[in-house]
Amino acid sequence: MHFKMDATSLSEFLAREFPQVAGDFAIEGVGEELVVRLRVREDHLRPGGTVSGPNMFALADVGIYLAILQRLGPVALAVTTNASMDFMRKPEAGRDLIARVRILKLGRVLAVGDVLIFSEGDTKPVARASMTYSIPPQ
Amino acid sequence: MHFKMDATSLSEFLAREFPQVAGDFAIEGVGEELVVRLRVREDHLRPGGTVSGPNMFALADVGIYLAILQRLGPVALAVTTNASMDFMRKPEAGRDLIARVRILKLGRVLAVGDVLIFSEGDTKPVARASMTYSIPPQ
Amino acid sequence: MHFKMDATSLSEFLAREFPQVAGDFAIEGVGEELVVRLRVREDHLRPGGTVSGPNMFALADVGIYLAILQRLGPVALAVTTNASMDFMRKPEAGRDLIARVRILKLGRVLAVGDVLIFSEGDTKPVARASMTYSIPPQ
Amino acid sequence: MHFKMDATSLSEFLAREFPQVAGDFAIEGVGEELVVRLRVREDHLRPGGTVSGPNMFALADVGIYLAILQRLGPVALAVTTNASMDFMRKPEAGRDLIARVRILKLGRVLAVGDVLIFSEGDTKPVARASMTYSIPPQ
Repeated sequence: MHFKMDATSLSEFLAREFPQVAGDFAIEGVGEELVVRLRVREDHLRPGGTVSGPNMFALADVGIYLAILQRLGPVALAVTTNASMDFMRKPEAGRDLIARVRILKLGRVLAVGDVLIFSEGDTKPVARASMTYSIPPQ
Repeated sequence: MHFKMDATSLSEFLAREFPQVAGDFAIEGVGEELVVRLRVREDHLRPGGTVSGPNMFALADVGIYLAILQRLGPVALAVTTNASMDFMRKPEAGRDLIARVRILKLGRVLAVGDVLIFSEGDTKPVARASMTYSIPPQ
Repeated sequence: MHFKMDATSLSEFLAREFPQVAGDFAIEGVGEELVVRLRVREDHLRPGGTVSGPNMFALADVGIYLAILQRLGPVALAVTTNASMDFMRKPEAGRDLIARVRILKLGRVLAVGDVLIFSEGDTKPVARASMTYSIPPQ
Repeated sequence: MHFKMDATSLSEFLAREFPQVAGDFAIEGVGEELVVRLRVREDHLRPGGTVSGPNMFALADVGIYLAILQRLGPVALAVTTNASMDFMRKPEAGRDLIARVRILKLGRVLAVGDVLIFSEGDTKPVARASMTYSIPPQ
């Protein structure tokens, strides 16, 4: 597949459009699978030292969104319409989270992606998410 | 139904256990339906002035969690295991969000709740969520 | 709200378009909430005498689909794009299932509904579902 | 990983416990990924000649269920508690469906799996599902 955006252009897009959160995320791999890191900080944590649900949601959402833009280019304001998420294990304290994103459908109107989220260095996922985005007419 | 926690004790629990976010939320009604307000601030917003997905997720998660504690008491560390969410309309800029929560199942091991989220003053929901929590053995 | 189809026209639509399954379902109430009965038969059951998951899925799907047609008229071939379902209790053996459907969004492109499913005569739901339908251009 | 059931014992289990539907399914691969075929027949179809949603749900449900038994053995009556499904493309008329199942979590109380469903011979999935099962105490 031909991609329209690489890691640099995706990072620049994120910094420009989402300046409040762009520093939280780093794009670590761009290919059929997009890999995004959440740089875990103190204020991402819940009591007990694990990353909170909303921050894992944000990582999944950003990851799938960027994987759509990687394919479509920075042309459109895609909007999340549905999200489904399973929280399966407690993230390891003191470790970044790594999201591995696949795009399963890239239609004219809807795009669907899914993601597995891991504590860095682990092979068992802490969470799974699938999300649908509505693609506005170009 | 007999409830084990009222608005005051739920608010105190939130302030004690989740001090970083407790100020964002206000409990506005406690009955079969629990009503929770997200006091929308600048840093909850996405470009365009609407509340971001992760903040709506957080509102749904806090609301259902509190509705479970309302019934079980502050005894247990319930953990979100599954979340499903539909984002249906753009929240109105400059308005708080109101979550209306129902508990659909309160089992020995699993609890399920759902929630409709509204821009304050509107009758059409901006989002819908259902979540499952694992209840640890008491 | 003005509805475009009543119980009779919805039943006729079902019999004409889905003759294989139309006899399984009966429309019991048409208003803001649409009420649909699954007439439980032997071949809907799993070992243990309860209605199987796929048959509860079918009831939710038919119910939300009909509630969309009730509002749009029999004009379009809406397609299910997403479904989320919680199975919360074992249905009672030997009882029909009753689905209570709400439409939460009726957009130009997407419609969202949710449903609670009960064993007839019970007040605690056996299942909950929410589904999204893609509405083709008219 | 050591598996407790192979293709033959899983097929026998299916035939014994679910005689009504066992003939619909064939186990085609057992490893980290379990591959299950839905032998599509006339009565699985919707108008237009494609497999209906409930039949795709049944395929996903059976597939993840068997992948759990493959790991746990035929000891327990696991129950589906949550299902999330995206329907992404129309299945090809006249072709079997192939489900590719992964187990993402196998806990003491809950198991989570996901599945991609393909029209045989295609590389783009027609549907995606993730499901949670409650594992009864042994």
